[in-house]
Amino acid sequence: MNAVIELLNSHRSIRKFTDQPIPQDTLNTLIQAGQAAATSSFIQACTVIQVNDQDKRNQLVECSGGQAYISQAPVFLVFCADMQRLKLACDMNDADINSGFTEQFITATVDVGLFAQNVTVAAESLGLGICYIGGIRNQIARVSELLDLPELVYPVFGLCLGHPDQNPEVKPRLPVDVVLKQDSYNDNGNQETIADYDKSVREYYQTRTGGNKEMTWSEQMSGMLVKEARPHMLAFLKEKGFLLK
Amino acid sequence: MNAVIELLNSHRSIRKFTDQPIPQDTLNTLIQAGQAAATSSFIQACTVIQVNDQDKRNQLVECSGGQAYISQAPVFLVFCADMQRLKLACDMNDADINSGFTEQFITATVDVGLFAQNVTVAAESLGLGICYIGGIRNQIARVSELLDLPELVYPVFGLCLGHPDQNPEVKPRLPVDVVLKQDSYNDNGNQETIADYDKSVREYYQTRTGGNKEMTWSEQMSGMLVKEARPHMLAFLKEKGFLLK
Repeated sequence: MNAVIELLNSHRSIRKFTDQPIPQDTLNTLIQAGQAAATSSFIQACTVIQVNDQDKRNQLVECSGGQAYISQAPVFLVFCADMQRLKLACDMNDADINSGFTEQFITATVDVGLFAQNVTVAAESLGLGICYIGGIRNQIARVSELLDLPELVYPVFGLCLGHPDQNPEVKPRLPVDVVLKQDSYNDNGNQETIADYDKSVREYYQTRTGGNKEMTWSEQMSGMLVKEARPHMLAFLKEKGFLLK
Repeated sequence: MNAVIELLNSHRSIRKFTDQPIPQDTLNTLIQAGQAAATSSFIQACTVIQVNDQDKRNQLVECSGGQAYISQAPVFLVFCADMQRLKLACDMNDADINSGFTEQFITATVDVGLFAQNVTVAAESLGLGICYIGGIRNQIARVSELLDLPELVYPVFGLCLGHPDQNPEVKPRLPVDVVLKQDSYNDNGNQETIADYDKSVREYYQTRTGGNKEMTWSEQMSGMLVKEARPHMLAFLKEKGFLLK
């Protein structure tokens, strides 16, 4: 274990920030650290929109089911998967982009994930806190319109960023032997291990909420996964030129 | 700038490794650092297959267009997006998972990206080198069969890991003002900036290959993007229970 790994292991989402602003230079440094992540075949398919406009911030709160910290965080970023810039690169060479492949959706989305996690690690190394906001996909068409996203661009998630004004506990993760397998997928013993893990998650919630929340991991997951999951997503992405084939 | 950000900025893919093995304890530490990354609604949808079997490694080389370092690296990992474990969590609570939503494909894929980038950063902090292998998606059905991946699991990418036996240069990235935008997507000036950037990429390739490779970024992208991109992907993913609605 070293200081970097300790930093990674100390991650928890921060949803309450002090008023201390983040200098633009610092933010640029974080974005450049994001760019330094690996990128599939050098496509560099991540574009970040920094949202400063308070009215847009307030609308993003509405788009995300009322998460007020989106409007309160010193910095709010929207991470986009961007094939539009690659279309431009094709145009500059009189080439017709052959877009719409599911494979390209994967590479662009993964690019965004690697980029954003580097931004997160860089931010946390400076003592800042972050919270990923998948909730912007609740009303993804409205978010897309609000930020003038063209064809071949979609907003993957948001990120709140600032100096922490709270100190939540680290949330316990699944045991490593459920997550790391040898030579093939094998779920022998998963159920017993998850049942044990369920107990530690229940304890975590009891401690964190003063005993008000009584929930295991598998209960939480099954409560969520019986429901529809943003059923508008496929139609929206197709309209944007993704997942056509 | 601090040591962590310098580490992030020093990333380059490593494709040649010394024979020095990686202790399993170290690998477990890296995986746990991966688990510490944020996970969408706590789904923890990443499963990693560590491939030790040499025959399987050799087959993975074939599946990936002949990238020999897949068989030579001390460690080779396949990162999978896993909703099967979430189905198990539902089963444990007598709940019927409502799977197949595109939204779930996004969250599981992003989970894998954040997890893997933490593994990468942790590895690099220990002086190890890595190379992401998207090439396993060339023959994704064969990879899936080789690793006995069940329904609701797909292999997103591989990762070679070991002590570096080469020291390649860091590859120049797009200027930050192309990638970071204020309040809305705006591609004014992108073409000029990319044209400048094209020159620095051409210089990078000339230096790195002793003048043998003459290629700008936009040329490289357009050469790739006029072609089909793994056109088997959508049918494969649907068979696995993803992207159905």
